[in-house]
Amino acid sequence: MSIVESTGNSMKDLVVEQTQQIASATQCIAEVNVEYYRVPLKEVLADAKHGMHTHFELVLCRIVCDDGLEGVGYTYTGGSGGRAIYSLLADELAPMLKGMDAGKIQAVWEKVQWHLHYVGRGGLVSFAQSAVDIALWDIRCKRLEQPLWKVAGGLSNKTRCYAGGIDLNFTQEKLLANIQSYLDRGFKAVKIKVGKEDYREDVARVRAVRELIGPDITFMVDANYSMTVEGAIRFSNAIADQDVTWFEEPTIPDDYQGYARIADATDIALAMGENLHTIHEFTYAIDQAKLGFVQPDASNIGGVTGWLAVANLAQAHNLPVCSHGMHELHVSLMASQPNAGQLEVHSFPIDEYTKHPLKLDADGLAVAPDIPGTGVVFDDARLKDYLIHSSN
Amino acid sequence: MSIVESTGNSMKDLVVEQTQQIASATQCIAEVNVEYYRVPLKEVLADAKHGMHTHFELVLCRIVCDDGLEGVGYTYTGGSGGRAIYSLLADELAPMLKGMDAGKIQAVWEKVQWHLHYVGRGGLVSFAQSAVDIALWDIRCKRLEQPLWKVAGGLSNKTRCYAGGIDLNFTQEKLLANIQSYLDRGFKAVKIKVGKEDYREDVARVRAVRELIGPDITFMVDANYSMTVEGAIRFSNAIADQDVTWFEEPTIPDDYQGYARIADATDIALAMGENLHTIHEFTYAIDQAKLGFVQPDASNIGGVTGWLAVANLAQAHNLPVCSHGMHELHVSLMASQPNAGQLEVHSFPIDEYTKHPLKLDADGLAVAPDIPGTGVVFDDARLKDYLIHSSN
Ligand SMILES: [Mg+2]
Ligand SMILES: [Mg+2]
Repeated sequence: MSIVESTGNSMKDLVVEQTQQIASATQCIAEVNVEYYRVPLKEVLADAKHGMHTHFELVLCRIVCDDGLEGVGYTYTGGSGGRAIYSLLADELAPMLKGMDAGKIQAVWEKVQWHLHYVGRGGLVSFAQSAVDIALWDIRCKRLEQPLWKVAGGLSNKTRCYAGGIDLNFTQEKLLANIQSYLDRGFKAVKIKVGKEDYREDVARVRAVRELIGPDITFMVDANYSMTVEGAIRFSNAIADQDVTWFEEPTIPDDYQGYARIADATDIALAMGENLHTIHEFTYAIDQAKLGFVQPDASNIGGVTGWLAVANLAQAHNLPVCSHGMHELHVSLMASQPNAGQLEVHSFPIDEYTKHPLKLDADGLAVAPDIPGTGVVFDDARLKDYLIHSSN
Repeated sequence: MSIVESTGNSMKDLVVEQTQQIASATQCIAEVNVEYYRVPLKEVLADAKHGMHTHFELVLCRIVCDDGLEGVGYTYTGGSGGRAIYSLLADELAPMLKGMDAGKIQAVWEKVQWHLHYVGRGGLVSFAQSAVDIALWDIRCKRLEQPLWKVAGGLSNKTRCYAGGIDLNFTQEKLLANIQSYLDRGFKAVKIKVGKEDYREDVARVRAVRELIGPDITFMVDANYSMTVEGAIRFSNAIADQDVTWFEEPTIPDDYQGYARIADATDIALAMGENLHTIHEFTYAIDQAKLGFVQPDASNIGGVTGWLAVANLAQAHNLPVCSHGMHELHVSLMASQPNAGQLEVHSFPIDEYTKHPLKLDADGLAVAPDIPGTGVVFDDARLKDYLIHSSN
């Protein structure tokens, strides 16, 4: 029996019943299994600072309660560090989690955070913590027999989205063909990489893309923090007439005040977040970097709990929240929130290894899965060839 | 032939010769071996936020050049995360380092930093990077046939130091006996943990220790970020008459502006650094937290290179630099610097597993080893029982 079927009453009743239902369930954590995959990309993809991407890494965390209910959480990387995340989950967290109440998500979150604080405060610990947290949200949603987009907020089951290319190594011809393929798939918004050695080449590519897509398609650029502050200002001003919605990671994410200098000297909104790994980093970025958009990634900001905390912080500051990567999960989080900006449909096709790959409706909106849980159900048959380590 | 023997000339000559000597050596990295140890403490030690310490973890990185010269680097933790550091070193960094020039320390540093940036920006990556960097400095010093205190700066071979207790779980009687044992060993400065549930107990312990040590011993307190900003202000003001030299980590290291609020409301100098893992975090802390002392740890700030960068930043801001942990290495770095404050002699006795445990002179100054290299030579016979994994 789902919550929605069981009550037509007020929000307060809903919350009370939800709490009782969670408390009464038998959900002591009995097993934590961890799997590490290296999944090849169909072609080599490049950006300005990470170089060539040949694989993505996927680390799954399967949490089984003592009544047999399983939640699946995960995180990913662009190719490095996945084994260390596996170690954190298998060696440090799995033994600690056993016996804890899977329904006390914030209590687990705090325990993980403080247990690994000395080697944490962001970095790899945030990735491992994310996988645990997502698994617990999967369990929560399954117990409620509700999809994540409802449990996380419930504004809507649809959200605006854009196709984010990792295309800095594409020739201009291939770049345009790739953008055309996004339009053909129904996208109403696109993003390209910038950060060529000669910034005039970036400017030419931006102009060529805008010419191809026309005035009605939303268009963003992403430098993967490859530019100096002065270089970013020069580039921004050179594309000021191209109606670019945001300029993502112009310079290193650590330099909040450098972002503010760029914002003060240009007219393009700035965006960042994929490299911020704690709520405190987002607090500083929002307070000091003069951002137009924030882009938390649930795979490295502490899972659904961490992502929602950033979304709330953004809303409190009148900022749209966006997402980075793992669109098969973020579609539900973005749809759930009132201040949602644009969902990134990332070039790492994790969703192709799940049973519910991302779907766009006729208006180019991304549609959240309507099944109990996070909506991310891995297709083990497709993934099994890429398994490297498993704690089972 | 050492540099100092070979030239009595100007600094410029020295640098030129040093550079030539480094460039001419055959120091391509041929092997990187990684070892992971769990070393038990003699007794269980507690602080306010990390709980009970029963072990420390030690991760060694042995880098061998193709002429056979070996440098040894290392990092440590309070008990968690060491296996993930081992993974970063053995799985990610060892293959990448092979074939690089061990003399181009900054080039290696940048390569490690950007290769792992997506899972980095501090956290565990900083620990792994530290072990690599320390090994390269060991090689550099050995090639120069110089001790680290000279190569890193060369101001002196001695530095002020204090005994840092992890003693929050000690009864007041045991606390005082422990402090007395520090005085008996010749220490002229001591630090205790605070952060009891009732802050009045902390106040009583501070008063009892000051009464024991008298007015001439330098005295610090450390809350391990366990207090609220308001709680830290209340406690600071309650011990304002106890001549406490610094109050370490009153609240979470992320809250730079919270530190400033404490500094504005009290008279005790604030200190932090053991939980800051990038130069950018130190930049923000120095700019915004109104610190009196900074305390980088070469094991988690990117090795000797990272520690010296923070020391230089501190000097530029007219602040003393101190250290956290691994005193057998920091003694040389602290002695080398003009703005050295106090070396922490930490309660994790890593030096007892080396061939040159820390020595104090008759004035209570710590004396840096005068042998070529970092001065840290592990005693394999003492460590071997605690080896868990080795990549050899
Ligand atoms: Mg990006
Ligand atoms: Mg401390």
